[in-house]
Amino acid sequence: METPVLNKINHPADLKELSPALLAGLCSELRGIILDTVSRNGGHLAPNLGIVELTVALHRVFRMPEDKIIWDVGHQSYVHKLLTGRKDRFSTIRTDGGLSGFPLREESEYDCFSAGHAGTAISAAMGFAAARDARNGKEHVIAVIGDGSLACGLSLEALNNVRTSCKNLIIILNDNKMSISKSVGAIPNYLNRIITGRSYNHFKAFAKMAVRRMPSGAEIIGGIQKLEEATKSLFVPGVFFEEMGLRYIGPINGHKLPELIETFTRVRDFNRPVIVHVITEKGAGCEYAKEAPEKFHGVSSFNPHTGHSERAVSGTNFSAAFGEAMMELAGKEPDLVAITAAMRSGTGLLKFSGQFPERFFDVGIAEEHALTFAGGLAAGGMRPVVALYATFLQRALDSVFHDICLQNLPVVICADRAGIVEDGPTHHGIYDESFLLAMPHLSVLAPKNETELKAMLCAAYNRKAPVVIRYPRGASELEHLPVPAPEWGKAETVRDGSDLAIWAVGREVGTALAVADRLGFSCRIVNARFLKPFDRDLFLADASRMPVFTIEDNLAGTGLDRITDSLLLNEKHCPVHHFAWPEDEIIPHGTLPRLREKYGMTPEAIAEKIRERLKTS
Amino acid sequence: METPVLNKINHPADLKELSPALLAGLCSELRGIILDTVSRNGGHLAPNLGIVELTVALHRVFRMPEDKIIWDVGHQSYVHKLLTGRKDRFSTIRTDGGLSGFPLREESEYDCFSAGHAGTAISAAMGFAAARDARNGKEHVIAVIGDGSLACGLSLEALNNVRTSCKNLIIILNDNKMSISKSVGAIPNYLNRIITGRSYNHFKAFAKMAVRRMPSGAEIIGGIQKLEEATKSLFVPGVFFEEMGLRYIGPINGHKLPELIETFTRVRDFNRPVIVHVITEKGAGCEYAKEAPEKFHGVSSFNPHTGHSERAVSGTNFSAAFGEAMMELAGKEPDLVAITAAMRSGTGLLKFSGQFPERFFDVGIAEEHALTFAGGLAAGGMRPVVALYATFLQRALDSVFHDICLQNLPVVICADRAGIVEDGPTHHGIYDESFLLAMPHLSVLAPKNETELKAMLCAAYNRKAPVVIRYPRGASELEHLPVPAPEWGKAETVRDGSDLAIWAVGREVGTALAVADRLGFSCRIVNARFLKPFDRDLFLADASRMPVFTIEDNLAGTGLDRITDSLLLNEKHCPVHHFAWPEDEIIPHGTLPRLREKYGMTPEAIAEKIRERLKTS
Repeated sequence: METPVLNKINHPADLKELSPALLAGLCSELRGIILDTVSRNGGHLAPNLGIVELTVALHRVFRMPEDKIIWDVGHQSYVHKLLTGRKDRFSTIRTDGGLSGFPLREESEYDCFSAGHAGTAISAAMGFAAARDARNGKEHVIAVIGDGSLACGLSLEALNNVRTSCKNLIIILNDNKMSISKSVGAIPNYLNRIITGRSYNHFKAFAKMAVRRMPSGAEIIGGIQKLEEATKSLFVPGVFFEEMGLRYIGPINGHKLPELIETFTRVRDFNRPVIVHVITEKGAGCEYAKEAPEKFHGVSSFNPHTGHSERAVSGTNFSAAFGEAMMELAGKEPDLVAITAAMRSGTGLLKFSGQFPERFFDVGIAEEHALTFAGGLAAGGMRPVVALYATFLQRALDSVFHDICLQNLPVVICADRAGIVEDGPTHHGIYDESFLLAMPHLSVLAPKNETELKAMLCAAYNRKAPVVIRYPRGASELEHLPVPAPEWGKAETVRDGSDLAIWAVGREVGTALAVADRLGFSCRIVNARFLKPFDRDLFLADASRMPVFTIEDNLAGTGLDRITDSLLLNEKHCPVHHFAWPEDEIIPHGTLPRLREKYGMTPEAIAEKIRERLKTS
Repeated sequence: METPVLNKINHPADLKELSPALLAGLCSELRGIILDTVSRNGGHLAPNLGIVELTVALHRVFRMPEDKIIWDVGHQSYVHKLLTGRKDRFSTIRTDGGLSGFPLREESEYDCFSAGHAGTAISAAMGFAAARDARNGKEHVIAVIGDGSLACGLSLEALNNVRTSCKNLIIILNDNKMSISKSVGAIPNYLNRIITGRSYNHFKAFAKMAVRRMPSGAEIIGGIQKLEEATKSLFVPGVFFEEMGLRYIGPINGHKLPELIETFTRVRDFNRPVIVHVITEKGAGCEYAKEAPEKFHGVSSFNPHTGHSERAVSGTNFSAAFGEAMMELAGKEPDLVAITAAMRSGTGLLKFSGQFPERFFDVGIAEEHALTFAGGLAAGGMRPVVALYATFLQRALDSVFHDICLQNLPVVICADRAGIVEDGPTHHGIYDESFLLAMPHLSVLAPKNETELKAMLCAAYNRKAPVVIRYPRGASELEHLPVPAPEWGKAETVRDGSDLAIWAVGREVGTALAVADRLGFSCRIVNARFLKPFDRDLFLADASRMPVFTIEDNLAGTGLDRITDSLLLNEKHCPVHHFAWPEDEIIPHGTLPRLREKYGMTPEAIAEKIRERLKTS
């Protein structure tokens, strides 16, 4: 690809000298290179096409890296990467050893804060701004955030504090009406009303009429009351943000460079926090991406001329199987409802949402609310199934604890994209299990293939207690394996053997089978199925007969390995014994001394146990 | 205490028959019994005194348990408990085996949702309301939430969804200007402006003037523009909530029963979500509690006539020691800043906030923002120390991961109230460690006494990397023990011995010493100090010489016990070997096959390892 203008841009300062015509040319080149690269490497297409002019304008007006840009989520930072000295490595984006698909502090001094999850930019930018204020710095701090992320609780907590925590801050609201799916809720709705100007125009018309009809005298009072009524239910653009302590500017067209540059130049030296409302179009400049922005949000490689995916469509995958199972279950169970957090397509619920719109809740990027809302639904007699990605479940762990598990409410949580994923450190689904396995009343399951996922979903539904089912992205490649009906808390012997046993979790059963093929020994292969409650008896029986190996797509020390280590040490009378508060019991309220007594945590009780232990060892 | 009116109330329906005079008498009796009981048992005083009339009015107007009340946090549910069949057991509140200090589903059909943490009520109530709508139910669902909780991200996520998720819902905003400390931020500020009516009155005056001055003709246009300008920066009460899709009613006086009853009766049959803004006074009806609502938010036993605490003031405690250490450190280190989430007093930062107001941030009940903001401050060159309770740290685990640990930013997190506390299941600080020990780059420390906490805070500060220090409520009673300077990752041998070793975490060193006294053997006592990085060498040396016991004030299987089990199994060549993604490494982006190769997770690599392992065992 020819990129004569981009070739001259080695750092953002080079933008300052470009003529308007060259800037426009640059935008075309940037679109071309993004389309070209993403069509080969996969990645985030539509969000980056939509933010070309906005990014160019930011780098034209501000002085990076002294000034700081904090990208929310960061999947829309490709243009930024191209303009900040990384154009030569851009073809490596998302490949092994190549550029990250997200801002990464280690990658460039222009990436001042790493990201991957949504809603962090305003908080983090406030940190930069407060740090600047503390040393009387003069640099500008800019947060770029989408309309979907703005409705995330973390963003709103930040807005609530913005006036008291920093002297100024520039928030660029990149409003494209989408998170990954269409944005939902009152705040995106509000933004939409600003743009259409409907209520505002209504207000203006009303005011005009009211003024015309009131020449003077007694009618004034009635007129004012009407005006009050009107303004109360009507609408002035930006008042929401003004109430939050921000100056509101906008809406402005996010694809008109001169308007963007003029506005950013004007707000640059405001002496208070400001939000600039920029309207962009996801996929701008590429017809097929504009028409299907959800499909082209994040993609695998495709034909850049047609938009068609080049990867053969596989049979099924875990997300699709989950979606199918939900449709079947919903047909039989009128109390079943589905909840997702801006991941309708990704979690496989698109069809479900069409067929059962009354029983489907997309709450936007609001994982905490998704889980607490599910707890309320369950307490109210419904049977919610919450589908989200494992890495985003981390954002709601306290809701899982406080609003579901402690209360033993029948909520099924389906954690898609569990295990290692292509997107990197922020997205790997390998951290949540550590916390989940500590939750009271909670069961944690992992299917080896898609059919087992369906069977587990039914079993979980019938369990009427909190259950998490974790499964990876994509297909298992184990659909040929039979799926005996799950028995609660029991592992499945996939193949018997006598030389050694391999216990595997979920899709790793496939790895275990492949290992066995290579070893040639007589290998016993066990599909753990349940991490909690765990099949202790079968595991200990295996361990007493042969060496046991475990394989799991999870962080070491936090899953099957931790469970089995403890079991073995307990049973094998290794020279260690522990005193702590019991797992799987809910410790009630009360004074510490009394609770210590009740649970054997007093010096007396511990001394007694130690004496026993020493006698038997 | 004489309670003639309350004696007649066996369930809330009995309220319906009381005359206004008797209702007023009931309120006095309720205040008396709460003051009396809390002065003996300890508990939440000021919040319950402030909500007497509001609760009586709710039970008078609505029909519980068919109608549902969901209490946010739930520390203000004492009146509710007294009116719903639990008055005879009320004297047992917060004692062992007695009533819980929070709503608890297991305790009463009138407690439809359990609580303890803030910000969950609107989400959960929306769940109840959506469940009702699904079965065309007619019951009313009422969330009672304080102004502090309203600014919590979870509440705001819920508000963003309220219009699309349920047909109607009654939110009672109990506005007393406080969370535990004074409420902070734009939303409480906004509520305050509603109450004072300042801007609103300004608006009315302006409108009146504008209308008078504009008889007709060309001036109208200019006038309308002025009006627009005015309304944009001015203010109409409730517009924030109206924009969120709620009908706003208020503000009303929360201590005038007739007004409350009249308003609740009116809103009962609204066919859309409504927020009723009720102004209450924390501690109402008790002079000393009204004057010091923060002190009397939650208290130990005290003299009900004077308000003076009867518990002797002890020397020091962990929170106080933390506060002192912060003052010292701040004097030397100009970059240090402190952050807390509505826990200024509780965490010991009251003095600090007075002496270093510019370096102190109370962000309100917004734990996620507290941690992400800290990440931004650290990336911006400051050195934040975040102080909160261990149980509330659960609410921000993803911020700890995504905005601090992954980026290896120098944030020190002080987790007070770690371990078992008096308040019960929602408040025990025993779950967070499971997740924290899985975090990359993070160190986790626990001091045995207050002096050690101070030494650890300095060491953590100098570490310039993410550190969590966990310590329990109150005093260690181990202040007499010497505190050798901490060496990073090294345990402290408190006492040597040869028959057995006891490894203890934090304050449990005291338990270990007491155990040793009772045993009579030659006991080696080790203070673990660091859970991460853990002193593996010393532990394994001990385990190779003698039986080892561990004691920790934490959930079994998630702390020291899990670490040591893995270590022992690894070293002892027990018949188990695990394959998982390595702890303490950040797995980069890339395709799964390549990542499997890099980290030895391919069938080939695993088969090879198994072969080796079988040879050596």
